[in-house]
Amino acid sequence: MRAFVMKRIGEVGVMEKPVPTPGPNDAIVRTTAALICTSDSHTVRGAIGPRENLTLGHESVGVIAALGDAVTGLRIGQRVAVNAITPCYVCENCLRGFTSQCTESLGGWKFANVKDGAMAEYFHVNQAVANLAPIPDSVPDEAAVYTCDMMSTGFMAAEHAQIPLGGTVAVFAAGPVGLMAIQGAKLLGAGWVAAVESVPRRQELARRFGADEVIDFTRGDPVATIRERTGGAGVDAAIEALGSEATFMNCVRATRPGGTISNVGYHGEGDYVRIPRLDWGVGMNDKTIRTGLCPGGRERMSRLLRFLASGRLDPTVMTTHRFAFSEIEAAFRMMDRKEDGIIKPLIRF
Amino acid sequence: MRAFVMKRIGEVGVMEKPVPTPGPNDAIVRTTAALICTSDSHTVRGAIGPRENLTLGHESVGVIAALGDAVTGLRIGQRVAVNAITPCYVCENCLRGFTSQCTESLGGWKFANVKDGAMAEYFHVNQAVANLAPIPDSVPDEAAVYTCDMMSTGFMAAEHAQIPLGGTVAVFAAGPVGLMAIQGAKLLGAGWVAAVESVPRRQELARRFGADEVIDFTRGDPVATIRERTGGAGVDAAIEALGSEATFMNCVRATRPGGTISNVGYHGEGDYVRIPRLDWGVGMNDKTIRTGLCPGGRERMSRLLRFLASGRLDPTVMTTHRFAFSEIEAAFRMMDRKEDGIIKPLIRF
Amino acid sequence: MRAFVMKRIGEVGVMEKPVPTPGPNDAIVRTTAALICTSDSHTVRGAIGPRENLTLGHESVGVIAALGDAVTGLRIGQRVAVNAITPCYVCENCLRGFTSQCTESLGGWKFANVKDGAMAEYFHVNQAVANLAPIPDSVPDEAAVYTCDMMSTGFMAAEHAQIPLGGTVAVFAAGPVGLMAIQGAKLLGAGWVAAVESVPRRQELARRFGADEVIDFTRGDPVATIRERTGGAGVDAAIEALGSEATFMNCVRATRPGGTISNVGYHGEGDYVRIPRLDWGVGMNDKTIRTGLCPGGRERMSRLLRFLASGRLDPTVMTTHRFAFSEIEAAFRMMDRKEDGIIKPLIRF
Amino acid sequence: MRAFVMKRIGEVGVMEKPVPTPGPNDAIVRTTAALICTSDSHTVRGAIGPRENLTLGHESVGVIAALGDAVTGLRIGQRVAVNAITPCYVCENCLRGFTSQCTESLGGWKFANVKDGAMAEYFHVNQAVANLAPIPDSVPDEAAVYTCDMMSTGFMAAEHAQIPLGGTVAVFAAGPVGLMAIQGAKLLGAGWVAAVESVPRRQELARRFGADEVIDFTRGDPVATIRERTGGAGVDAAIEALGSEATFMNCVRATRPGGTISNVGYHGEGDYVRIPRLDWGVGMNDKTIRTGLCPGGRERMSRLLRFLASGRLDPTVMTTHRFAFSEIEAAFRMMDRKEDGIIKPLIRF
Repeated sequence: MRAFVMKRIGEVGVMEKPVPTPGPNDAIVRTTAALICTSDSHTVRGAIGPRENLTLGHESVGVIAALGDAVTGLRIGQRVAVNAITPCYVCENCLRGFTSQCTESLGGWKFANVKDGAMAEYFHVNQAVANLAPIPDSVPDEAAVYTCDMMSTGFMAAEHAQIPLGGTVAVFAAGPVGLMAIQGAKLLGAGWVAAVESVPRRQELARRFGADEVIDFTRGDPVATIRERTGGAGVDAAIEALGSEATFMNCVRATRPGGTISNVGYHGEGDYVRIPRLDWGVGMNDKTIRTGLCPGGRERMSRLLRFLASGRLDPTVMTTHRFAFSEIEAAFRMMDRKEDGIIKPLIRF
Repeated sequence: MRAFVMKRIGEVGVMEKPVPTPGPNDAIVRTTAALICTSDSHTVRGAIGPRENLTLGHESVGVIAALGDAVTGLRIGQRVAVNAITPCYVCENCLRGFTSQCTESLGGWKFANVKDGAMAEYFHVNQAVANLAPIPDSVPDEAAVYTCDMMSTGFMAAEHAQIPLGGTVAVFAAGPVGLMAIQGAKLLGAGWVAAVESVPRRQELARRFGADEVIDFTRGDPVATIRERTGGAGVDAAIEALGSEATFMNCVRATRPGGTISNVGYHGEGDYVRIPRLDWGVGMNDKTIRTGLCPGGRERMSRLLRFLASGRLDPTVMTTHRFAFSEIEAAFRMMDRKEDGIIKPLIRF
Repeated sequence: MRAFVMKRIGEVGVMEKPVPTPGPNDAIVRTTAALICTSDSHTVRGAIGPRENLTLGHESVGVIAALGDAVTGLRIGQRVAVNAITPCYVCENCLRGFTSQCTESLGGWKFANVKDGAMAEYFHVNQAVANLAPIPDSVPDEAAVYTCDMMSTGFMAAEHAQIPLGGTVAVFAAGPVGLMAIQGAKLLGAGWVAAVESVPRRQELARRFGADEVIDFTRGDPVATIRERTGGAGVDAAIEALGSEATFMNCVRATRPGGTISNVGYHGEGDYVRIPRLDWGVGMNDKTIRTGLCPGGRERMSRLLRFLASGRLDPTVMTTHRFAFSEIEAAFRMMDRKEDGIIKPLIRF
Repeated sequence: MRAFVMKRIGEVGVMEKPVPTPGPNDAIVRTTAALICTSDSHTVRGAIGPRENLTLGHESVGVIAALGDAVTGLRIGQRVAVNAITPCYVCENCLRGFTSQCTESLGGWKFANVKDGAMAEYFHVNQAVANLAPIPDSVPDEAAVYTCDMMSTGFMAAEHAQIPLGGTVAVFAAGPVGLMAIQGAKLLGAGWVAAVESVPRRQELARRFGADEVIDFTRGDPVATIRERTGGAGVDAAIEALGSEATFMNCVRATRPGGTISNVGYHGEGDYVRIPRLDWGVGMNDKTIRTGLCPGGRERMSRLLRFLASGRLDPTVMTTHRFAFSEIEAAFRMMDRKEDGIIKPLIRF
């Protein structure tokens, strides 16, 4: 089969690999649709160290092609979505409820990290019973593929934000995860959501996914605007959806005492991320900084798919570009360089 | 009446002031016992800016001397404990449940900050119904005075730590608040508590209040020891009870994925407090950083007093020195310089 | 001033009363709009015992006419909404966070219970700072009045239901509180909401407020339908919005293991309310039964008003009838008898 | 091997069975110590319907005798404790966090229910990685065996009780689960715990495990006593540890508004369990009724074992009688009839 791989740091390409085979608890999925994620760019640049001929990708849906002997309740030919994070569910961290930290810090992230990813004609899924979510008939693959990471991650950001009913939220950066965080905040009862974003196309999508106000940080201090809009107090919750220290510090500054900073951005640089001491109430003003990694699992995926089945939410408006798998290298390059206002490129198999 | 005041930055002394009078919802308390807190030293050094002839002190108990017209359910002559933090309970932050952030960030802290403190022969208490806690007959003033700040603050650190039953906790620094955090962690079901402390007297008290292990950070990296003792994983929760960036960073390093860093230390220096990026899982390993300020209020104080009434806990072993109020200046100097292994000095009126 | 009163059990009427005067922490509000609530009918029938010439009503908005001396941050002439429940915020139950249980069980309910209600030209509000919520200019009184009870109570039902994001909910009975529970469940991220209701007008409103399916219990066992729609499992949460034992038992039957039964109905009859033992997992299947009473307070009211200011929600579609205050007796009779498909009658002053 | 079985309803005995073999994810344990539980008596009497030659028992520890091919991180010969509840961890209810409701209501309960139990020379454990907890060297089998059900169940009762720090708790019935609920309430920060019990030996143990007061319900209404001790208010939480409607109703009566009733008793009789309507605040006084079934899993078991390793807790004082496995029939009869003040009989293999 063909797989899109990171050959080494800085180099990608398509190569032939054998179709994987399942262990007793595993499944093999034949890919039908996939999305490219910016984190693959980080990986290729070396963010998690060297890899050799590692298949990339972690946002794929498809059809069950093979099942391990101990797998029950699933059948070959079933359409399924698989989350970017595929925990074992039986290790200590999983039993503690932190399945994304399966085995160790960030250890639930297996695709394109500790094993081949899902940007290939077939991919392997561990613990199939818990990690494969059947896709309802009414939900097309092109929509379902958004549950794999974008919806699960963005909504988690909102779940971690502890938004009071009718509360105020600021989402910093309206990339695809930020957009889903905006949507998530609205789904979870926020009364006012501000998106901090300067790119017009993203501003537009932010409004579409429910932002009550869009704040362009190139036109003035967004924290000052947020404070003004909230009677001087700041927001109940701020969501960091970029992974930059400057944005993180703004989140701390923009929240009111007792507020929550929900971090979902991948902080890729520097030895430290700084908290502004006074805005943090010298460590005493009841602010909470919460972090997390995309929660996976069939049960959660099924809940996310419900929003697509009912038509309440349409994430496919984020699909700005479409490619065949044969065009994957060009698509990856485009996403890597964020050309042509790209938000999410869909790959069809 | 006599009051112990901060005359200006760097200068303290005793002066005569009129006995305060109550507004409709207030009370005046005649002081019987008080503790000196290190935070008064910070204040005198200018940590919260200049003050002129401001009465110091926020850990006092006494007897009700006068009550406002609208106060019900209390009577003159009643023995009462008053928390360091005296919220209004009716402003927006109080109604949100963040009473220590009454009105604004840290705004529940009124004594020796926005109004005269409690190190005087009489002191004024706002919102008396909610802020005065009757002391049970069986509890002496010298024990009850520990509920005003030390027990409430230290126990809050443990409450914020989200300790699973039988979980592991590391408390960084065993000053009086750290000691009460150790005790609080044990009260809340911790299965293993490590105290990181190098001063022998404090190490001893740490063991007495329930530390299963004392780690002397002068003899090696305490985080390495914590990891070793927890099978490499780190603790479920780390409590910062010092207010230093180095200690805070160790808390982030010492916790396992999904763990909680409960900050109770007052961070008095620098523009920023740094988070070590990799130990924080690049912002994605489900760690939570929670902060807080001593929670006040009659209802909580009554629950804390229950531990003293039943004899389950004896905080008075922290009372290393005793003084008459006439000796307050010497006592303050001793506490300021941490002479003679002082932990908490008790002032009797 | 004129007031609509319960003269004695079974008898209502309009009478002259003096305009009330405020104590130091109180306010007097001149009424502009009010809603009639079915619970007043219960009261008049004797549900809470005898009362003599007690002013009825607890869903009123108006303009501040007078303020007590100790009240700050409000001004005469301001448009305000007042919740049906007006806690003191300083008693033990309030400090515990159960403000609706102010002082004692259900003790936050003061209007038309322990003091004159709000269906009069003027009404008295205790603890004004915490209980008066300024109404944004863009929100008309006729909409704001829905925050006093219907929105606050119905949304609380959904908040107590612990709905997982994308989870399933069944709301039993789509009267005004049930309708707001449906809306609340959608606001809080439910993925599928079923309304169990047989009256066509209410079925229609249920759909309008977000019900994905309406189940007519006169056409078959609604629990069987709910189980069928949820793959045999039952819903994550069931909301009892009627106050009947039969409906409560259906809630227990309709929830899956680990689910929540959120009770908001007033159970007015019998010595006991029965739990079906086997559907309750013989007391061991992780189900939770949660109860509550309309939460009040300025801070919550302000959050609810935000939904009206942004136009996200329009509760006025429940206003089926409108009356002048001079027609209050006829309006009350109509509501009492539920004539002409009445849902909520608005009274204008 | 020999196994102690329920031959049919009403009849028990020892029989020969083949040593079980493991599937890919399973383990076989050679039993070293076990406890008899009253629920086996219920089973034999037919509480869960007919069974034929079903091995009884669910409180056993032992040594790993065989492991499935897919099991990692465990080794033959290791001493392990296995919880009474052995979930799969990958089904929908497990992924929702309700592992005791694995697959279906109460479905985590597999031993002596849907498969052979653990009162045999060898027993089979599904999902071995998650269900086998290594026993620390310092903890003898005779103590470790208490984690299998008594500690896990009793402590869960306290965890569900939502006890505020220093709060008040009443535990109804001090059988072995009630005793562990008392201990659990103390471990979790209760300030005052009352045990309602009339049997002297159990009263004594209740005090030993931390009860501040023992209330003999044969000498007067225990609820009246509880109210008197709590200033008329009732307790923050009541724990039902018997499984009787009368006791359950007392729990509702004994709790204050906003309080929690934590049910852990197995309600074996009648079609309904009644809630007293007025004490339940007509369904509106913020009381919560929470149920649950013994939580299992290696991670939790390891936390419970920590209390034994540190010597903080000694459950073996509940071991009133000791038998060899060859005496199992006599032991079972004695437990069934609660002869000789028996609390827990230990079976040695």
